[in-house]
Amino acid sequence: MSRYHPVTPEIIECLRAICGAENVSTSQADIDLHAKDQSHHEAHPAEVVVFPQIAEAVAETLRLANDARIPVTPWGVGTSLEGNPIPFYGGILMSFERMNEIVAVHADDFQVTVQPGIGHKDLNAELARYGLFFPPDPGANATVGGMLANNAAGIRTVRYGASKDNVLKMQVALADGRLIQVGSRSVKQSSGYDLLHLFVGSEGTLGIITEATLRLVPVPSLMSAVVAAFPTVEAAVETVVAVRGSGLDPAALELIDAAHCKMLRETEGVDLLDYPTVFMEFHAAHDAALQAGLDTVREICAEMGALRVHATTDTTERKRLWHARHHSYEIMVRSHPNKQFFIMDVSVPISAYPALIAFIEQVKRESGATAYMIGHAGDGNIHVEFPYDDGVSRDRAFRLNSAIVIKAIELGGTATGEHGVGIGKAKYMRREHGEALDVMRAIKAALDPNNILNPGKIFPNGGAA
Amino acid sequence: MSRYHPVTPEIIECLRAICGAENVSTSQADIDLHAKDQSHHEAHPAEVVVFPQIAEAVAETLRLANDARIPVTPWGVGTSLEGNPIPFYGGILMSFERMNEIVAVHADDFQVTVQPGIGHKDLNAELARYGLFFPPDPGANATVGGMLANNAAGIRTVRYGASKDNVLKMQVALADGRLIQVGSRSVKQSSGYDLLHLFVGSEGTLGIITEATLRLVPVPSLMSAVVAAFPTVEAAVETVVAVRGSGLDPAALELIDAAHCKMLRETEGVDLLDYPTVFMEFHAAHDAALQAGLDTVREICAEMGALRVHATTDTTERKRLWHARHHSYEIMVRSHPNKQFFIMDVSVPISAYPALIAFIEQVKRESGATAYMIGHAGDGNIHVEFPYDDGVSRDRAFRLNSAIVIKAIELGGTATGEHGVGIGKAKYMRREHGEALDVMRAIKAALDPNNILNPGKIFPNGGAA
Repeated sequence: MSRYHPVTPEIIECLRAICGAENVSTSQADIDLHAKDQSHHEAHPAEVVVFPQIAEAVAETLRLANDARIPVTPWGVGTSLEGNPIPFYGGILMSFERMNEIVAVHADDFQVTVQPGIGHKDLNAELARYGLFFPPDPGANATVGGMLANNAAGIRTVRYGASKDNVLKMQVALADGRLIQVGSRSVKQSSGYDLLHLFVGSEGTLGIITEATLRLVPVPSLMSAVVAAFPTVEAAVETVVAVRGSGLDPAALELIDAAHCKMLRETEGVDLLDYPTVFMEFHAAHDAALQAGLDTVREICAEMGALRVHATTDTTERKRLWHARHHSYEIMVRSHPNKQFFIMDVSVPISAYPALIAFIEQVKRESGATAYMIGHAGDGNIHVEFPYDDGVSRDRAFRLNSAIVIKAIELGGTATGEHGVGIGKAKYMRREHGEALDVMRAIKAALDPNNILNPGKIFPNGGAA
Repeated sequence: MSRYHPVTPEIIECLRAICGAENVSTSQADIDLHAKDQSHHEAHPAEVVVFPQIAEAVAETLRLANDARIPVTPWGVGTSLEGNPIPFYGGILMSFERMNEIVAVHADDFQVTVQPGIGHKDLNAELARYGLFFPPDPGANATVGGMLANNAAGIRTVRYGASKDNVLKMQVALADGRLIQVGSRSVKQSSGYDLLHLFVGSEGTLGIITEATLRLVPVPSLMSAVVAAFPTVEAAVETVVAVRGSGLDPAALELIDAAHCKMLRETEGVDLLDYPTVFMEFHAAHDAALQAGLDTVREICAEMGALRVHATTDTTERKRLWHARHHSYEIMVRSHPNKQFFIMDVSVPISAYPALIAFIEQVKRESGATAYMIGHAGDGNIHVEFPYDDGVSRDRAFRLNSAIVIKAIELGGTATGEHGVGIGKAKYMRREHGEALDVMRAIKAALDPNNILNPGKIFPNGGAA
């Protein structure tokens, strides 16, 4: 794209001065490592990779890039699934690998301030000593910065919310090199525009997160797991609705389809039936509360015609069950040697979930595609996983993806519940948002007039903002 | 201000055509009724009051006003406390009194879609039949539109969040007359910029909310109340922190200072000691859970040196206690005949709460002012209520307000936790937000270039955006 200028030797010199020579790389290995995330989207090489160590270096790099009209794409650890951190137009790839410190633990406030490059699992390992944890869990050890930029969510969202619900304050570097603070360490704030949530989920296209103060919750003292199999997806989803309505406040409410259950049973020996299955988790402060809750859940499951219900408060057994859920992707990969995978993500109001699932089953049947469903049913969120190994099966997966996304939007849902827009979902933005997309463009133009921040993402037509 | 054009007879004719003749008023009674909210801020008359009945009339009115450069100020029911809906520069006052319907109850989704003029208490009365409720409760029967525009919160925020946490989707009329949809009925969404939260809390300065889909929660089957008195505010606040850390998930954690307790005891016969007192509420699905929780709370209170702890699961007694808390403002007004009241609102990280309270006690003592403290301690939020009856006591209240706001910001807090910026807090925005205020201005300029939407609010210097 002719609007961008190349990274010249002079620019490299400036980057070395800003970031430190040891934090600027043009090696092929570094370029290749940061050309592609975990998605199926094709690789695009950056011209240079920088590893800033301080927020001021991030800001100065942006000022330089803005003046020189060079794209800058932020990178956490590359676990995203829609091409979100791929340097689509080349330019500068900014890795946060060397900004991965805990800045301060505010234990009494249930808060922690971190640099964006820290992995959420690494963070939670440190926080365990305070009896606190950062609840969003997208599975992979994504960085906090990447999670915030994409508003990642995961299995505990039904109780604890998505990344956007668990952040209070951020430092953000703007395209023109200003460093601003948004939000507040006060958990309550109604002071001016909510810039915090404008930057969260904006995928680095409005500014780059250089520090974040996260909201933490106490590690629950007691947990239980319930696994229940149902004759139909409808019965499973009715159970999900009933459990949510019971006031029990589940910490996880997951749906696994019959095909996925079969795979987990055959390859991992998990004791599951080949029927739609609901995985649930409950947290409580007292055993009496936990037991009473389990009684209610058993009653609900029986009423909804469960084929089998297994409840446990045994930690080892609970962990074994969730291990299978957490590693379902790896298990699927192992079960399909020599295949690639396309994972799609949509979300709808829970009342539309049965219609969405029925539609997915229908298109899967009609097309003859292999596909697995696994979803955060409590949130109306479903992932469909398509193994493919040639152009035909790949194109078919893309076609089905498109049909499912359009169906989800028709059902009052969204093109993406937790993976973000990136490259892959940009083409659905007009359909989902209508004229609100023009408001997004106006804000983009106000904050990044030269479109240097992660161009090629969110907006259709190559990210033309 | 010369930049605005007057409301001419021709404009009135256009408004009648847009809204219906019966929905346009220039009567002195209507002008006076909408010139001032419940705050101490001075009245400003609008030139005309309109009562649109449909979203399209809101949008067309904005298009007309934008073309003619006439300010438009939205009005819920006027219970705000910082002058937020006062028509500072005259022009068109837009009341939502005639857009107060429930559009749709989505019971399975725990959602309701409403017009903005409905009172949250009226809404909850309707929702009771579904066993659901909209949890934010600012006390007065504020409209949902006003609550969203100001990000109102209240006593249940510690468990259920503020207004911003309980809304999923809105229809918004923009300054140029476009009607857009922001957010999604899907509870999970990571699809483009979070415009929903940009409009929430923007006090009608970026767009006007014409419809909202709210997130509801099941009415808890069981509730308990605990009232505990402590020798010091520090001990009371430590209790608040310990209760939050216990995993009990309290539904309310309120602090009432000794002076306020004395007033409630003397005027209402509520059995309180003249010591800092913590009011707590817990919700549970089972009696066993409720009782176990109360045991833990009693232990924590004893450990923190409580002078007296009273816990009850009796509904009548619980309601009587909370009635006193909910009506503390009216009780104070009755106890101080012939006085006016200035109520201020700040919020800090909970760890800074003892320092903030100590500072308030100090300035109160040094100045000799009468003042009462009542706060949502679980959120680090405090309100100081100053009765005044002359220029001297009024000016002193304003001086103390200013000192307390600046202290709260110094302590890492915010100028307003839940009342919004309005007119009163605009002068603190630069201090609190620094250069982020310029980003707010850039967004304002992008969405409302003629500054017709509720001018005079949020931004310092008369709202010059």
